[in-house]
Amino acid sequence: MSDAVAGRLLARKGEILERLKALLRLPSVSADPAYAAGMAATREFLMARLRQAGLADVRLLDGGGQPAVTAAWTGAPGRPTLIIYSHYDVQPPDPLDLWTSPPFEPDIRDGRIYARGASDVKGSTLIAIETVAAFLEAGGCPVNVRFFLEGEEEIGSPSLRSLIERHRDALAADAVLSADGGRASTRLPTVNVGSRGLARLDVTLRTAEKDLHSGRYGGAVRNAIHELARLLATFHDEEGRIAVPGFLDDLAPIGARERADAAALGLDEAAFYAAIGAHPWGDPAYSVEERLTLLPSIEVNGMWGGYTGAGGKTVLPCEAHAKITMRLGPGQDPSRVQRVLCDHLLARAPEGVTLHFEAMGGGTPAFTLAEGHPLLVAAERVIARTTGRPPVRARIGGTLPVAAIFREMLGLDTLMFGFAMPDEDIHAPNEFFRLSSLEEGLGAWPLLLTELGTMEPAAFRAGAGGAQAERASTKTLL
Amino acid sequence: MSDAVAGRLLARKGEILERLKALLRLPSVSADPAYAAGMAATREFLMARLRQAGLADVRLLDGGGQPAVTAAWTGAPGRPTLIIYSHYDVQPPDPLDLWTSPPFEPDIRDGRIYARGASDVKGSTLIAIETVAAFLEAGGCPVNVRFFLEGEEEIGSPSLRSLIERHRDALAADAVLSADGGRASTRLPTVNVGSRGLARLDVTLRTAEKDLHSGRYGGAVRNAIHELARLLATFHDEEGRIAVPGFLDDLAPIGARERADAAALGLDEAAFYAAIGAHPWGDPAYSVEERLTLLPSIEVNGMWGGYTGAGGKTVLPCEAHAKITMRLGPGQDPSRVQRVLCDHLLARAPEGVTLHFEAMGGGTPAFTLAEGHPLLVAAERVIARTTGRPPVRARIGGTLPVAAIFREMLGLDTLMFGFAMPDEDIHAPNEFFRLSSLEEGLGAWPLLLTELGTMEPAAFRAGAGGAQAERASTKTLL
Repeated sequence: MSDAVAGRLLARKGEILERLKALLRLPSVSADPAYAAGMAATREFLMARLRQAGLADVRLLDGGGQPAVTAAWTGAPGRPTLIIYSHYDVQPPDPLDLWTSPPFEPDIRDGRIYARGASDVKGSTLIAIETVAAFLEAGGCPVNVRFFLEGEEEIGSPSLRSLIERHRDALAADAVLSADGGRASTRLPTVNVGSRGLARLDVTLRTAEKDLHSGRYGGAVRNAIHELARLLATFHDEEGRIAVPGFLDDLAPIGARERADAAALGLDEAAFYAAIGAHPWGDPAYSVEERLTLLPSIEVNGMWGGYTGAGGKTVLPCEAHAKITMRLGPGQDPSRVQRVLCDHLLARAPEGVTLHFEAMGGGTPAFTLAEGHPLLVAAERVIARTTGRPPVRARIGGTLPVAAIFREMLGLDTLMFGFAMPDEDIHAPNEFFRLSSLEEGLGAWPLLLTELGTMEPAAFRAGAGGAQAERASTKTLL
Repeated sequence: MSDAVAGRLLARKGEILERLKALLRLPSVSADPAYAAGMAATREFLMARLRQAGLADVRLLDGGGQPAVTAAWTGAPGRPTLIIYSHYDVQPPDPLDLWTSPPFEPDIRDGRIYARGASDVKGSTLIAIETVAAFLEAGGCPVNVRFFLEGEEEIGSPSLRSLIERHRDALAADAVLSADGGRASTRLPTVNVGSRGLARLDVTLRTAEKDLHSGRYGGAVRNAIHELARLLATFHDEEGRIAVPGFLDDLAPIGARERADAAALGLDEAAFYAAIGAHPWGDPAYSVEERLTLLPSIEVNGMWGGYTGAGGKTVLPCEAHAKITMRLGPGQDPSRVQRVLCDHLLARAPEGVTLHFEAMGGGTPAFTLAEGHPLLVAAERVIARTTGRPPVRARIGGTLPVAAIFREMLGLDTLMFGFAMPDEDIHAPNEFFRLSSLEEGLGAWPLLLTELGTMEPAAFRAGAGGAQAERASTKTLL
């Protein structure tokens, strides 16, 4: 049946593309309250499509923040039940002036659809929805499905735990398929076996009670920007190794299999840097692929202080700010690295400099899908069939908080089966999604559901038992 | 006559205060084009008052940027002619949320008038205008006067040179009185004998062609914020000495008289820091007063990069910015220190980091009024008479570009005779001006004009010849 379903999907590709454009026109930015109407419209859009497709129990789940969209089809008794996870929120679109076409007016150029959220992750989300819709239209799905589309992934999923806690009934399942978590290569077929974790820390530094005039105070009072710069300058050594004492202490040793998998991707390092106009950097003991997926990183995502408007202002700023996130490698505890970074900053702040810390949302540990897990077996079979080549096992450098949290709270493992490519400028201006990926996804998802439908529900849980469990944490620093 | 004039001014203090409030309601922010209407309204206000007071030749002088306001009274043939200099522009008011009362709605609390521009420098400007108005009402002024009120002081006076070049006819004079350049102490009478210079530099740093996703690139690509932080962290050593090689090379040696004058101010260093909630900092070989007025300083006035909006964004920023100004000590050449700072940054930027420099407006060297100059003699007499104590000679840490430029272009020396106090939060939220200073200024200015009226015009020029000339420069870096 999956071939018939795939054929049906490809035949209506034009209709699905129009639906994707409509979805991309809805500005679902979760980080900024100004986009509340866009968030609500996106939820309505998804619920309408799920209802139209014949799913039951289409509704919003409230977890205290942005609600999640759910829908279920349980017409395959005895067959596995899979949560189909994705997120409907997108990153903020700014800086707006760097977009070639407006971020919420999808524009097709050279076989690509440009819009905020096209790659991350409305394209892959729609592939999953349309696949289930086509199965139901053809009489039924080979597995039971429960959609769970959250609205806070781009802000660190702060209420995901309370969503799960409050709505366990809507999430009874054997495993999770994630439409998020893209492919690791534009050249090779890959299957995702893990992701990095994430921890956040906001820092405010003060040196005086008020902003001062540089003519009256310059040379005798600490400048908050200078002081914050001095602190941020200590995160890495000259070559790019993390230089925060203790930061790497709980990083799991990187094994031969992991290094071999990373090498199998055959990343062209020169082309990698040339594509973004950057120069090689990072821990020289590791390949670029290893740095990006197995090692942690520390990034200041934003920093500001003083006068940043038009013209000049001779102010001596008393306050400066940094928004910091850390990507975590396997084994690292988010709360611990947050604390280590705070301690590092506090130890280096001179007298007269005060620091205030705020952590935004809970941290997420790295996730790893165990060797031999039925999700992995099914994915490898499908990808081998659709691409004609056995896929390379890859980890993503990004974070899927849901994978760690589903494992911890529901004992479920997650397969990332998204179709985003790594060069699609997600989180940046001119984000795009390949139209060819839309087609590939619509071919592969029916096969995947069919393959999973042949497996015994208990097999997923057995696999989970053997997985490398890592505790997810949402503790925030006070 | 000056006593009668002073009496007349004090009698109409209430009316003058209302006029000051009206002037403060006009938002004359030169740094931001959004305030163009406020700039124009302020010029109209000043011209109307000068016309009403009986001055002739009231008009705008065009120099290519914000026009200057001029007006003349030349009814004292044979007596000295003085340019009365001030500026009608103010600093931007942000951060707005830190103001107790709105910045352009003057509010009187505890004997102080709070508003942007109250202390810097609309209060002192109005004192000068009202003094001349009162003399003319009483029959005439003891000196000839030419008002010259510029509109670009807060952005570094970029078109001051072309204003002077184009309008030398309106500026024929023997010396300059500046209503800008405040008092150095809230406790002691002082007379200003110099100011620091100013040079600017804007820096943009890039590490890649576009902003990147920290999940996909974090750990293998330089972050522009980290790199700019590393560079800014090299400006000072741990104790606060400037650590930019060569920066201090052209600083004039600080002499015994200068150190004695600085010490005579009797700055209470503990109280100085306590008042602003800051901790002592700066070159330990010098007193705080010396650091503030005789040594140069480097300040990052603003820095920004990456995502600075609500919530979080896991971006790896490719670009970061800093607005830098330097206060210059006697002897320092603005173009040279700009170049030295550029060279310093370029020498420390690693491969893959590109820097773009932009200097905003011309630099200004430090200014020094020579020993025995008639302007200084007159000021010392007036202050001794109005306060009952001989004034302490003080330098200001701020900059009066006009003083250096008048000396270079017109051979004129400048006396700073403003009534702002050093604690009035200029360039910061909740700027204020003391009502008692308004009264003191209205008492002292009539005496000063009377005193100067007794001197021979040639004496001012002779003094100028003996002054420590320093070349002013408006060269900008390409």
